[in-house]
Amino acid sequence: MNGTVYVTRRAHFSASHRLFDPSFSDERNAEIFGGCSNPNGHGHNYTIEVTVAGPPDPATGFVVDLKRVKQVLQERFLAFVDHRNLNVDVPFLRGVNPTTENIAVAAWRQLAPHIPAGTLHSVRIFETENNFVEYKGE
Amino acid sequence: MNGTVYVTRRAHFSASHRLFDPSFSDERNAEIFGGCSNPNGHGHNYTIEVTVAGPPDPATGFVVDLKRVKQVLQERFLAFVDHRNLNVDVPFLRGVNPTTENIAVAAWRQLAPHIPAGTLHSVRIFETENNFVEYKGE
Amino acid sequence: MNGTVYVTRRAHFSASHRLFDPSFSDERNAEIFGGCSNPNGHGHNYTIEVTVAGPPDPATGFVVDLKRVKQVLQERFLAFVDHRNLNVDVPFLRGVNPTTENIAVAAWRQLAPHIPAGTLHSVRIFETENNFVEYKGE
Amino acid sequence: MNGTVYVTRRAHFSASHRLFDPSFSDERNAEIFGGCSNPNGHGHNYTIEVTVAGPPDPATGFVVDLKRVKQVLQERFLAFVDHRNLNVDVPFLRGVNPTTENIAVAAWRQLAPHIPAGTLHSVRIFETENNFVEYKGE
Amino acid sequence: MNGTVYVTRRAHFSASHRLFDPSFSDERNAEIFGGCSNPNGHGHNYTIEVTVAGPPDPATGFVVDLKRVKQVLQERFLAFVDHRNLNVDVPFLRGVNPTTENIAVAAWRQLAPHIPAGTLHSVRIFETENNFVEYKGE
Amino acid sequence: MNGTVYVTRRAHFSASHRLFDPSFSDERNAEIFGGCSNPNGHGHNYTIEVTVAGPPDPATGFVVDLKRVKQVLQERFLAFVDHRNLNVDVPFLRGVNPTTENIAVAAWRQLAPHIPAGTLHSVRIFETENNFVEYKGE
Repeated sequence: MNGTVYVTRRAHFSASHRLFDPSFSDERNAEIFGGCSNPNGHGHNYTIEVTVAGPPDPATGFVVDLKRVKQVLQERFLAFVDHRNLNVDVPFLRGVNPTTENIAVAAWRQLAPHIPAGTLHSVRIFETENNFVEYKGE
Repeated sequence: MNGTVYVTRRAHFSASHRLFDPSFSDERNAEIFGGCSNPNGHGHNYTIEVTVAGPPDPATGFVVDLKRVKQVLQERFLAFVDHRNLNVDVPFLRGVNPTTENIAVAAWRQLAPHIPAGTLHSVRIFETENNFVEYKGE
Repeated sequence: MNGTVYVTRRAHFSASHRLFDPSFSDERNAEIFGGCSNPNGHGHNYTIEVTVAGPPDPATGFVVDLKRVKQVLQERFLAFVDHRNLNVDVPFLRGVNPTTENIAVAAWRQLAPHIPAGTLHSVRIFETENNFVEYKGE
Repeated sequence: MNGTVYVTRRAHFSASHRLFDPSFSDERNAEIFGGCSNPNGHGHNYTIEVTVAGPPDPATGFVVDLKRVKQVLQERFLAFVDHRNLNVDVPFLRGVNPTTENIAVAAWRQLAPHIPAGTLHSVRIFETENNFVEYKGE
Repeated sequence: MNGTVYVTRRAHFSASHRLFDPSFSDERNAEIFGGCSNPNGHGHNYTIEVTVAGPPDPATGFVVDLKRVKQVLQERFLAFVDHRNLNVDVPFLRGVNPTTENIAVAAWRQLAPHIPAGTLHSVRIFETENNFVEYKGE
Repeated sequence: MNGTVYVTRRAHFSASHRLFDPSFSDERNAEIFGGCSNPNGHGHNYTIEVTVAGPPDPATGFVVDLKRVKQVLQERFLAFVDHRNLNVDVPFLRGVNPTTENIAVAAWRQLAPHIPAGTLHSVRIFETENNFVEYKGE
């Protein structure tokens, strides 16, 4: 069988963060980021969904080796963020305000170089069931 | 960071409705709408997902001020439909058969004028876990 | 194998209702029942969970024939409430304010006579994901 | 109302399968398919989501008669796979390694001829909450 | 209608925490608490379920005024923990290692004095979908 | 803090099975077990919830070392059933009709000897979202 199939792998991580811009006044941080700028932080059970796309291999019936995607997701992203403080513990988020938007873009940049060229289609991050973002590398 | 990020806000409302066309016979309404045309109505816990799209603001890391989206969603849509009868209580559904399709299009029209121009990407309405629709304004 | 095992069957129904007491003033109904007393009603996707308990039959490995529980649940409860208005369409709720509490007790009374004696353990009704009740016949 | 609305119907089926290629050695099957190539099989509660797209009919407010989509989904797909072994019981999967990718493409081919021309938009299959695929017929 | 009905209200909060005992060595904290003792903390989307029990009031059909339970839950618990750091921001957790067990017991103590006497039945706290605890005041 | 706290750990496994009694005729197996007696089997994504109960340790705030419970659950149960055929691959289910009831009792017997004495409170097995059982060792 041929044609493009989109394959998604979903995983979870638990992390803390604080939304704020160090160049803003406390008042402005509170106004823009609300409770999310609590000085001592807060946290979430995040969900990440990584989608790759391409034609299934006729021999295996797989678009990609999903074990490889899981390994890349674990080694290049989850190992850095799970049970961590996103403001201080994560090299690839240094100097970045850890909004869900910025986490999704950073995840894409961590994963794309290690996934078969041209197959990474989107990264979705759920901060809660009610707030989530998607980035497609465009 | 730049590029387009899709940001979704999810909310819930509980409402009753009856599907029928007053110009149809009772038999035809029953045939087309089945149990959904029960004369005294029935109801659902609806879920709405509103997606906006654009580049994250470099200063805040936000595509839009999600507090504003929540406020628009509350004031322009949820306040009219939550704990209401969609056939008789909702000005913007007057004369409209409240199918999930029609509710999604109506929600788009209620929200679009109050969300930053060009950023509203889609509205999804779940009538149940097993039935849902999406409208992208096209 | 012996010992007591609790077996639960879960199902869904969509219904409308209005919470109010006809002997109360409109003001008192609004005060007690809030948005739930909207005169034209509202609705929910309800979930019901029926639990039976007993020792598994050594021959079949079943506590009860769950096909029988499904049939009783369908014929004695779901057929009366699914896609209905709980205030006016349901004989066994006539004169009853359809709070989740009262629906659970009514469901127990509908089901108990038709389930093997002594095995009905509890009935749970979820009005939403965030509001649910349980009744154990005591 | 006009414009394109995407309407999705979701359903479930429980099936067993074994991932392997009969032309591979046992070692190669184990290497590629891991635990999924257990000789006696394993199984899943699969979820299928079928999306059709088009303008809502002005008279009914429906994109398509969803009762028809449910019937096609039942008769052309679920009746063949629910409570079955995907390797041996399903005519339209004969000779196909039942990866989620291949099941999604096969489901599209089963459904498309029986759904109003041009309206089938996508088929999604969830093998678990954490692994799912989408096929859009392209 | 009489008999005991159990009524549950569910809510969410997002918080950060670090599990550790200041009297333990770093090694012992790491051994006992694993990744949960990351010095800069991590976080969760917690869910709390509060169950009250009693006979439904014959006039209202309510076991308790659930609006009152929601208000107590908000004012006595959620207002202190949502978008907070459980190790440093919460007066009633001062000096307490914020395990899920200890949070549940603390929640009970916060709520019980403000809920009608004898009706509080249990408090459940979900740290993730896969880890949760229940406390019944015994 | 003292008092009894119930702590639950949830995990998943994917397995195939066929419900039948080899001493029954094919007709009787079909009549009692319906689609579940398909000769080539079918399968499920099962969920298991293991609950232990006791007073939290004053030093750690833990009822038990949940890492130990996870390890026992993995080594004594999941390692035998995940990605397996429950009728033929599992030593502790040999000769047992793999109904959800029987799987729960077997899981209890596998786990109880390796969990701190007297703390195992219940085992719940979900075959699907709509069918689940609980066993408390009584």
